[in-house]
Amino acid sequence: PGPPAAEAERGGPRGGAADGEAEAEEFGCPAHCSDLAWRQNEQRRHGLYCDITLAFGGAGMAREYRAHRSVLAAATEYFTPLLSGGFAESRSGRVELQKWSSEGGPDPDTVEAVIGFMYTGTIRVSPGNVHEVLEMADRFLLTRLKDFCGEFLKKKLNLSNCVAVHSLAHMYSLNQLALKAQDMIRRNFHKVIQDEEFYTLPFHLVRDWLSDSEITVDSEEILFETVLKWVQKNPEERERYFEDLFKLLRLSQMKPTYLTRHVKSEQLVSSNEACVKLVSEAVESHALRSENLQSGNLQHSA
Amino acid sequence: PGPPAAEAERGGPRGGAADGEAEAEEFGCPAHCSDLAWRQNEQRRHGLYCDITLAFGGAGMAREYRAHRSVLAAATEYFTPLLSGGFAESRSGRVELQKWSSEGGPDPDTVEAVIGFMYTGTIRVSPGNVHEVLEMADRFLLTRLKDFCGEFLKKKLNLSNCVAVHSLAHMYSLNQLALKAQDMIRRNFHKVIQDEEFYTLPFHLVRDWLSDSEITVDSEEILFETVLKWVQKNPEERERYFEDLFKLLRLSQMKPTYLTRHVKSEQLVSSNEACVKLVSEAVESHALRSENLQSGNLQHSA
Repeated sequence: PGPPAAEAERGGPRGGAADGEAEAEEFGCPAHCSDLAWRQNEQRRHGLYCDITLAFGGAGMAREYRAHRSVLAAATEYFTPLLSGGFAESRSGRVELQKWSSEGGPDPDTVEAVIGFMYTGTIRVSPGNVHEVLEMADRFLLTRLKDFCGEFLKKKLNLSNCVAVHSLAHMYSLNQLALKAQDMIRRNFHKVIQDEEFYTLPFHLVRDWLSDSEITVDSEEILFETVLKWVQKNPEERERYFEDLFKLLRLSQMKPTYLTRHVKSEQLVSSNEACVKLVSEAVESHALRSENLQSGNLQHSA
Repeated sequence: PGPPAAEAERGGPRGGAADGEAEAEEFGCPAHCSDLAWRQNEQRRHGLYCDITLAFGGAGMAREYRAHRSVLAAATEYFTPLLSGGFAESRSGRVELQKWSSEGGPDPDTVEAVIGFMYTGTIRVSPGNVHEVLEMADRFLLTRLKDFCGEFLKKKLNLSNCVAVHSLAHMYSLNQLALKAQDMIRRNFHKVIQDEEFYTLPFHLVRDWLSDSEITVDSEEILFETVLKWVQKNPEERERYFEDLFKLLRLSQMKPTYLTRHVKSEQLVSSNEACVKLVSEAVESHALRSENLQSGNLQHSA
């Protein structure tokens, strides 16, 4: 510390511009942000300064929620084009939010909770609302909330929900979750097909599971019964898929008695030419194989 | 863990209400709040969704800043009555903010910075803007920002700014800061009165300092010169205060030669009957005391 430093320490004129910048301090107050968010949410709940209406559900039966354009547009890019451009929504101050997985739209408490999340970054997620929270988070591009739902479902994953969770994970591209659920389903497929949930799956997922070479079952016969049960849950809708699913079964691994007594006699099989042909071929190949085995045995013992 | 626990672990039906609550999780995302705040501030800077105008400065020369009622009302209670009630401001969407310490109102960059703080809880404070930031924080009831300014000034306190800082601390009831500045001023009063800043103080503060029994000076004569200098900086305004300040000086501690040669002959003193009287009394008491001392000495030596 030579003379110039000592000079500086004595203190120059107050408030000099160059001097001022060097001595400036940043004041950041995170509590201010969360207070602000919480109070804007309170305003919303009391309808104060609101300038937009969100209408959830069908046209005639919409439930309305008042909110602030400014907050919604800041919370998610979903609303940015709707609110700022020349869209009808921007002029009318009303955004229609239709087409939800359940007919009347998400549960009102869940809608309130997700709008609350847009305002405050805080939400309570439970096994009871996670599906709808996920649906809304995905729709409204709330990436952090969507990821949280994925993590939440991963923790709650068990044998009795893995089929439903896998189906959700697929729908919302939660790849990590989908892989974990897939793994659980593969390793426990024989148990999974005992659960009614499995029989609510759409055709393309049932097809995917039956095509999956890594599913574990005690016998191929059980898979035939699974296909039957799935179709019989809603024959009108599902009979047309029977042939496609039946072709995925490895008939050659079923016992000849089972093929002739149960499979062949099943009405869904006997009424379908292609299926009948497949059963016949399987029974034939069983017969040929046993003849080969016997002649092999004879040659051996000779 | 007996049988009932084992039963529970197997997992009940999915999404049961009672079951669901127990397994619920709170998701809190502080980053969401700060993103929200930052984006609403960006909207403000681009004039998006704004519904209120803040007009700073005089009526004819006001500078206007667009903002969101919702954010301002959430950021500080100062705006709550103005925006929500039946006030004229609420109907017109315009809030006039007049009467500032500097005539045209605070510096535009500082206004922008403080409005930015209301939105984001973040601000850059420097020796150059701290006075105006403090004035606005006090006016707008931004307690946290006001406290930060107090702490900032405490750290920057030095001999060349302590008089100004003490005056600010008084004005904005920053008691801790006022005490610290007061202490520095008391211990260095002889230096403080060499600084021009002291001579910008209003009457009531100069009076307080001269009444303060804890100020340290080399001699009482210096205080007489300080009073003179303060008055002479603006005689038209300040001559009327001369008598009050003069009465606070301890004339009995000035040397008789100084009293007769400098004090008595000063025009401000000689033209004021009460002051003349005080000087005469002080000179007299000096004379009496020296006579007593001499006679005491004589008695002693006798």
